[in-house]
Amino acid sequence: MLILVINCGSSSVKYNLFDVESEKSPCKGVIERIGQKGASLDHKKNGASLQKEQLSCRNHYEAIEIIANILIHPEKGVLSSLLDVAGIGHRVVHGGEEFKAATLVKEDVINHIEKFSELAPLHNPPSLAGIKGCLKIFPDVKQVAIFDTAFHQTMPEYAYCYGIPYEFYKKYAIRRYGFHGTSHRYISIKAAELLKKPIAEVNLITVHLGNGCSISAIEGGKSVDTSMGFTPLEGLLMGTRAGDIDPAVVFFLMKKENFTVEQIDDVLNKKSGLLGVSGVSNDMRDLLDAIKEGNHRARLAYDIFVYRIKKYIGAYSAVLGRVNAVAFSAGIGENVPEIKEEIEKHLKEMLPNTKFLTVKTNEELLIAKDTYALINTIPACK
Amino acid sequence: MLILVINCGSSSVKYNLFDVESEKSPCKGVIERIGQKGASLDHKKNGASLQKEQLSCRNHYEAIEIIANILIHPEKGVLSSLLDVAGIGHRVVHGGEEFKAATLVKEDVINHIEKFSELAPLHNPPSLAGIKGCLKIFPDVKQVAIFDTAFHQTMPEYAYCYGIPYEFYKKYAIRRYGFHGTSHRYISIKAAELLKKPIAEVNLITVHLGNGCSISAIEGGKSVDTSMGFTPLEGLLMGTRAGDIDPAVVFFLMKKENFTVEQIDDVLNKKSGLLGVSGVSNDMRDLLDAIKEGNHRARLAYDIFVYRIKKYIGAYSAVLGRVNAVAFSAGIGENVPEIKEEIEKHLKEMLPNTKFLTVKTNEELLIAKDTYALINTIPACK
Repeated sequence: MLILVINCGSSSVKYNLFDVESEKSPCKGVIERIGQKGASLDHKKNGASLQKEQLSCRNHYEAIEIIANILIHPEKGVLSSLLDVAGIGHRVVHGGEEFKAATLVKEDVINHIEKFSELAPLHNPPSLAGIKGCLKIFPDVKQVAIFDTAFHQTMPEYAYCYGIPYEFYKKYAIRRYGFHGTSHRYISIKAAELLKKPIAEVNLITVHLGNGCSISAIEGGKSVDTSMGFTPLEGLLMGTRAGDIDPAVVFFLMKKENFTVEQIDDVLNKKSGLLGVSGVSNDMRDLLDAIKEGNHRARLAYDIFVYRIKKYIGAYSAVLGRVNAVAFSAGIGENVPEIKEEIEKHLKEMLPNTKFLTVKTNEELLIAKDTYALINTIPACK
Repeated sequence: MLILVINCGSSSVKYNLFDVESEKSPCKGVIERIGQKGASLDHKKNGASLQKEQLSCRNHYEAIEIIANILIHPEKGVLSSLLDVAGIGHRVVHGGEEFKAATLVKEDVINHIEKFSELAPLHNPPSLAGIKGCLKIFPDVKQVAIFDTAFHQTMPEYAYCYGIPYEFYKKYAIRRYGFHGTSHRYISIKAAELLKKPIAEVNLITVHLGNGCSISAIEGGKSVDTSMGFTPLEGLLMGTRAGDIDPAVVFFLMKKENFTVEQIDDVLNKKSGLLGVSGVSNDMRDLLDAIKEGNHRARLAYDIFVYRIKKYIGAYSAVLGRVNAVAFSAGIGENVPEIKEEIEKHLKEMLPNTKFLTVKTNEELLIAKDTYALINTIPACK
């Protein structure tokens, strides 16, 4: 059975067609620079990359049209009809407190996603555009929304409430939501498989290190805490995000530099992190090269990055009491083994019974499986 | 030998005269509401409290005069002359990166404290006023400045640097400084004594829980990390301070509530923490009463408070690798044993070889001893 996964960014749409039984992907690709000059399509069929091609793509609706057309294209595609798609799974970043699992898209779901756009202004509007496009272009195909926040909805109140006046939680829903939920869930499932234990019986710490980075404490398959918070800005050091800082730094800097809210947002989300500390790059590979050349600030950025992960592993070990495994994943987590090795060596005395694993994450496959499970009304993937 | 300790707040001056050899305090007291109607003096002699009296006290200079006069008062005082004071130790909150230990007050020291007033606008100016007052009123007595930040100057760069653009560290000295340094040092010295081990051979986590709260990782007597940061706002939940939050909450709230920098500062420093979450009080005793009456938000505030401490103990255990003791201190730490008990029980499996201690902190005594040590040019108290 074929499930199409759609992942919309502000100027991009990633698509991935899965055969859920075999977990194979016959077709996938990405449209980038939507709404800009030089929009492009990079399409792969059975693993082979077709030439990247320039095309016109003014908005997310047109992007979905392009994807639909290429999927049924006689040479480039694999479908004879759009009806061959049994369901479409949409990645949606913010589901607020409303959505705790994969959800069939209906009118009220769209309204809720719209409502949470205020909490995820860069992410929810493009997801909505993708959903609306698919509803028109695939009118007879079931659509499912999979929320990045849903997996973390099991956090206890004392873990998700901030120490600010409670009125602001009631008024604006300011609380820890956490993100990368589908990835943390996927990593935890795979880690339990590697441990050869039922997930309900293990405590895990999942470490998602991509350009965005987050870490979660998973107790018996349930997220009990995670480092990203109200927004993806909190927590670990990231490619361009500051992660944890003294909140007073925000208003001190605004005052000294005469920053507007938009400018401080931009500094902390786009000019900080590995990039801001090193002055070299937001890409760990570039940093590792710079470190080899003796660049002090690149070394400092790397050291802060690793140190923060160590501290969070310690914090979540305290939360869980006992940890079966710490699982590293995503771009940096899968490809820079020295980070895991350094941390494992440092924590071996404190966590002698904990395994340190590397797991390849695959959010899109889990989105496909959740979508498949929901439209077949069988229990969601565990 | 008698040492006078002076601790100036924005509208108060605490004073404490110590006989350093016996560690006894023949005279101590506090002047409050300086510059306001109804300023008051509460003076104790040999442990007995004299009646609290209203008086006129327009500024910190006048407060020092009042203190000098009462110390040589034939009945209320204990000195025959101000020259009986061998040295005066001043608590100063912010010493920036300049001061790593107790420092004899000279012209350049005053200039530096003035410079750091920007980083501690509520704290350094009154300390300076107290120092200047003492220089006039006790012209022949040596004055020593003891900085709250000094003990934490041993933190490694990757622990004190934030993930913001490095330029802001260079330009504005934005970094983690940490506070309560004298208290953390005192607690660590006492904890090592309780463990009957040289401080250089033990790793400690010191937990200062007063109205302000902070926690430190101490490796062989040296602070290697601490939860308060650029300002005292970061870290644990406190009486009225929020502690750690997603930095994006700061500018989200500013935008939604149209807050100025001063207003958001006020909300996060004075209306958050135990007070803001519970809506009941910033005082843990009131919260414990409210919890007994079934108040949900009081329970939530308490739970967040304890949970944060647990997480930091975990994080600092990871930093230290091996922990000999976790020592609780200050108002809440010394008087609410259930907090320590709950945390100890929860962490026993993870930290089986770690002792959980309660230590009575005494910053003022350590300030007196450091002052004594410095003016006698013997090595500082270890």
